[in-house]
Amino acid sequence: MINIAILGFGVVGSGVAEVLTMNKEIIKEHVGDEVNVKYILDLRDFPDSPFADKVVHDYNIILNDDEVSIVAEAMGGLHPAFDFSEQALKKGKSVVTSNKEVVAEKGDELLKLAAENNARYLFEASVGGGIPVLRPLGTCLAANKINEINGILNGTTNYILTQMIDFGKTFEVALKEAQQKGYAEANPTADVEGIDACRKICILAAIAFGKLINPSEVSTQGISKIRLEDVKNAAEAGYSIKLIGQAKDVNGKMAVSVAPRLVPYTNLLSKVDDVFNGVMVNGNAVDDVIFIGRGAGMMPTASAVVADIVDIAGRPELKNQQWAKAERNDLACACEKVAKYYVCTKSGENAVKEVFGEYKALSDKDGEFAFITNEIKKADLDKLLEKLDVLSCLEIL
Amino acid sequence: MINIAILGFGVVGSGVAEVLTMNKEIIKEHVGDEVNVKYILDLRDFPDSPFADKVVHDYNIILNDDEVSIVAEAMGGLHPAFDFSEQALKKGKSVVTSNKEVVAEKGDELLKLAAENNARYLFEASVGGGIPVLRPLGTCLAANKINEINGILNGTTNYILTQMIDFGKTFEVALKEAQQKGYAEANPTADVEGIDACRKICILAAIAFGKLINPSEVSTQGISKIRLEDVKNAAEAGYSIKLIGQAKDVNGKMAVSVAPRLVPYTNLLSKVDDVFNGVMVNGNAVDDVIFIGRGAGMMPTASAVVADIVDIAGRPELKNQQWAKAERNDLACACEKVAKYYVCTKSGENAVKEVFGEYKALSDKDGEFAFITNEIKKADLDKLLEKLDVLSCLEIL
Repeated sequence: MINIAILGFGVVGSGVAEVLTMNKEIIKEHVGDEVNVKYILDLRDFPDSPFADKVVHDYNIILNDDEVSIVAEAMGGLHPAFDFSEQALKKGKSVVTSNKEVVAEKGDELLKLAAENNARYLFEASVGGGIPVLRPLGTCLAANKINEINGILNGTTNYILTQMIDFGKTFEVALKEAQQKGYAEANPTADVEGIDACRKICILAAIAFGKLINPSEVSTQGISKIRLEDVKNAAEAGYSIKLIGQAKDVNGKMAVSVAPRLVPYTNLLSKVDDVFNGVMVNGNAVDDVIFIGRGAGMMPTASAVVADIVDIAGRPELKNQQWAKAERNDLACACEKVAKYYVCTKSGENAVKEVFGEYKALSDKDGEFAFITNEIKKADLDKLLEKLDVLSCLEIL
Repeated sequence: MINIAILGFGVVGSGVAEVLTMNKEIIKEHVGDEVNVKYILDLRDFPDSPFADKVVHDYNIILNDDEVSIVAEAMGGLHPAFDFSEQALKKGKSVVTSNKEVVAEKGDELLKLAAENNARYLFEASVGGGIPVLRPLGTCLAANKINEINGILNGTTNYILTQMIDFGKTFEVALKEAQQKGYAEANPTADVEGIDACRKICILAAIAFGKLINPSEVSTQGISKIRLEDVKNAAEAGYSIKLIGQAKDVNGKMAVSVAPRLVPYTNLLSKVDDVFNGVMVNGNAVDDVIFIGRGAGMMPTASAVVADIVDIAGRPELKNQQWAKAERNDLACACEKVAKYYVCTKSGENAVKEVFGEYKALSDKDGEFAFITNEIKKADLDKLLEKLDVLSCLEIL
């Protein structure tokens, strides 16, 4: 029997317990042994839960129980989740988690610690919820040099943008509705400002390139400034505005960023709507592959956490990939990036013609002129835009 | 150093050699050792190839070389590919392949043989080309009871259908163009009649349900009878016609089939066009996840074959899943299946009203009346349709 402990009995933690119960037989078949929840750590008691008798309040009980070989950290937040994970790994217990904050901030340290203690640290659920993406990226695409990853990594913002696109709602109205439906939190900053998506693209980039960039070093732009006019202009030109986390190999250096981007209708990511997530990976042999599914929610997230438990329980001897910390020299300068841009300006077409010369006009109404630039280096674009009264500027994917 | 042999130096085999060369360093890092192509088995010589000196014509050289630990079978066809795989496994050499025919017909035997000889048998490339789907289904979704798999599994037919849908070409014209572009073979039967898709859904079903159904037992319908009128009627009602391989759990029994089906625009599979493949998996925890990418082609297929080589080279001790042969009693009767159907008939709306009572009318022109039934058991549908002069009948996904 494989004994595990669940840290935190919130949405994800209780989902993990539920999936382990609901699919007990299937899991047993995969592992070749029974997976048993021995402890659940939480500050609260849950007298009405079928797991009531598993609840403990002192982490040391778990740490000191040699029968517990796997810890499922489902607490969220950096502390004490990181510290608890660290302590478990030091005891040779493997750790699985859905906690993107810990993985994005401290993944390199925890992977190292896992290797040093013959344990494993897995976090499939930290990106894309239940969508299998981290493991396929690290295994099925192992024969590829990864050129680029583009992902819709946050369901809340994708829901809000879909409401803006399909129903012409403003950001403010769509956000309020998302909060009412429980898709957005009372304080929605981490979602709408791209912080959550940023952590996830850092994790994807680390798997693809072997180096973990700290989220604080990633240019991150959210969706709170997206105007309905931009959504409409984009739609008329054949684009959906999506919050895209991007990790790109630029001449051997990593370019990582999060920003709302115009995704052409010919790209399937433009069709990934509502709370769904989608990750598109381009490898030098496989070309584009896309993974789509529910990026959040109790059961999808628990599905991925339990898959990690199954993986460890069935093959505890496997080694994890190791990550280095990304140094300044590993990172490409954003100013060097070449792309096309959507620009909306108050300055009018004549001014645009004078500054840009060539461009593709999109719309000219209500004193706003929208256009798409030719391919241009970001540094050069910024210089040109200084000469115009710019309302919006968004990169084209 | 890990020595491998490639059997067959056609499109896939040469792709495998090329990926191993092109991404040598990345692969070395993943494996922790160099992967070296020691032999290439082919009837021909390739004097101009950089691999000319690796070519051998006698399989025994490979079989009897203890340094060769992995054999990449890229020959296609059932024989001698199966026999060669069998012989390699008996010698304790692991085998990887893109050969869906061998896997669908003999996968259970080869997996058993692999286990008995402490070797591995992997075939990620046999379904969906470069798209990571078999390994994610077996690992990342291991915590799920799989309810249903629906896949666009054949690029040739998807290209033909896309041409019919987007450009109003007839099946015959689209097929001829596909042949000119090299997407369809001179004898296109295996593709257009669904035989290739059938092998692939058998493999997916085996991974999901642990039982291998022989392709000959699967109800398989191709696209050669799809009429342009049906494509247009479907489009007007919000559906794309796609050739769908389906594997479903029906009360604990497997229902496996291949048929052109109407896929609603709200289902992302309807947007998977041209030569792309897409596989949608529904699990009881994760809900729907979708994998999309290039289902064929030299480099994407080689990407998956090499990923299997990397997997084995890095972790030769892992155990394969084992499959039982699906018995009659494991299979659900197609007649019991409940679905909605698109029907086009010459009998006119009055006759349809008399026979079906309730239905959703789609189109009534040129002496053809098209409609969508309510949910109905297949056996009941067939009885009702006997009373009408039916031109087409397609299931709705």
